[in-house]
Amino acid sequence: MANNFLLSLSLIMATILGLFIGTVSSSSSADWNILNQKWRFKVEKTTNDLKTYCESWRINVEVNNIRGFSVVPQECVDHVKKYMTSSQYKADSERTVEEVRLYLSSGCCTLKGDGKDSWIFDIDETLLSTIPYFKNHGFGGEKVNSSSLEAWMMESKAPALDHKLELFHEIKNRGIKIFLISSRKEFLRSSTVDNLVNVGYHGWTRLIMRGLDDEIMAARKYHSKVRQQLVDEGYRIWGILSDQWSTSYGLPIPNRTFKLPNSIYYIA
Amino acid sequence: MANNFLLSLSLIMATILGLFIGTVSSSSSADWNILNQKWRFKVEKTTNDLKTYCESWRINVEVNNIRGFSVVPQECVDHVKKYMTSSQYKADSERTVEEVRLYLSSGCCTLKGDGKDSWIFDIDETLLSTIPYFKNHGFGGEKVNSSSLEAWMMESKAPALDHKLELFHEIKNRGIKIFLISSRKEFLRSSTVDNLVNVGYHGWTRLIMRGLDDEIMAARKYHSKVRQQLVDEGYRIWGILSDQWSTSYGLPIPNRTFKLPNSIYYIA
Repeated sequence: MANNFLLSLSLIMATILGLFIGTVSSSSSADWNILNQKWRFKVEKTTNDLKTYCESWRINVEVNNIRGFSVVPQECVDHVKKYMTSSQYKADSERTVEEVRLYLSSGCCTLKGDGKDSWIFDIDETLLSTIPYFKNHGFGGEKVNSSSLEAWMMESKAPALDHKLELFHEIKNRGIKIFLISSRKEFLRSSTVDNLVNVGYHGWTRLIMRGLDDEIMAARKYHSKVRQQLVDEGYRIWGILSDQWSTSYGLPIPNRTFKLPNSIYYIA
Repeated sequence: MANNFLLSLSLIMATILGLFIGTVSSSSSADWNILNQKWRFKVEKTTNDLKTYCESWRINVEVNNIRGFSVVPQECVDHVKKYMTSSQYKADSERTVEEVRLYLSSGCCTLKGDGKDSWIFDIDETLLSTIPYFKNHGFGGEKVNSSSLEAWMMESKAPALDHKLELFHEIKNRGIKIFLISSRKEFLRSSTVDNLVNVGYHGWTRLIMRGLDDEIMAARKYHSKVRQQLVDEGYRIWGILSDQWSTSYGLPIPNRTFKLPNSIYYIA
């Protein structure tokens, strides 16, 4: 009887203690949860605001509303890096290549087969990727150091960009002459040729690079000048594939321009 | 002693039963979790793949790689709707407006104050929003029914787009003349004027709309023709704000073009 009484008493005490502990712990855990939620909400809001802000920056670069930037805004370097190494970047570029194919198959261009049908490719971020370099050099967050970038280019190690290699050969096989017009300087010619050939590009008609006279000229003027020379030689330029707007700016107005994404650097 | 034995036996049995139930329930819950995870992974992958695909479509529209589409691909209507009604769309547009301000404050344009400095605004998806109409008409997923859209335009109920109203007056207050060049047809003139004035736009120099002759012409030719007329009248066009590339295509080449987002429809 005494044992039963003690057992009952213990059970009642334990229940009360349990209820007390439960209440205290659940109430403090609720407070903690609210604090935690508020904090997470703030962090998420700040993260989302920054994401929205940086995405707006990137999109306005892509459509050429933001021009001539020398560095990616510090707070957006991570965003740009994330995009430029993402499956979205690959998908966006692939879609651009698909649109070139669609354009060429749609009867856009009455090829005369007289050797004057032509296509212009840019090189960096179009046929070759300099992302391996920028991965080790601030990813757009540092002002481009030309000597350092050019030293890297001289190593001829830039990889080919997905889908561009196939497109290059497809266009060539249509009997269209390919002109490579690059903002790279003349002294990089042999390294550039080596690099292109090493990754599978061959059979272009002419590789045009910036000579000493062109170096002092804005890229858009240099590209316009070269296009004019080609037109003067009788070439019909059916299209341009490039990551930079300066490649297609001004006269002669290209039949079509295809813009690949690049928010790491801007060539004016 | 017997009681103690029974108690111990009960405890051992309960423990074994507990362990058994625990094992069974945790193992079936693990199986369930794996199935659930696999299913969720598949759904997420499909959702992510579609999101990536549609984002590539949208981006390639924005940079003018995809041209002349008559409807948004069915599978991307939700994506486009989500974007065009999102805070990202607002932020992207606001950033464009900020870039116009930056351009005008950067000493871009030596204003002569002779009444010949000018700026061109497009109307739909630039000053006014037709999104309320498209919300009820397939959001780009249905081919635009001109009669239905024009009937809606005649009601003069299109709201002003955020930030554009302020920009409009800021540019005007700089002493720059404002030309509104729209692809809307002439018969919509009074409804358009009413709409613009009702939401706060006033003080433009000229509203140019498509006459009967212009209607058979591609929008890009119409815009180019109008720009040429303005230049012939001695106007210096410092810039264009529009959601369509056709507004700034061809000659005369505008000093600057600012592209606002719009992936609902394309005017060639």
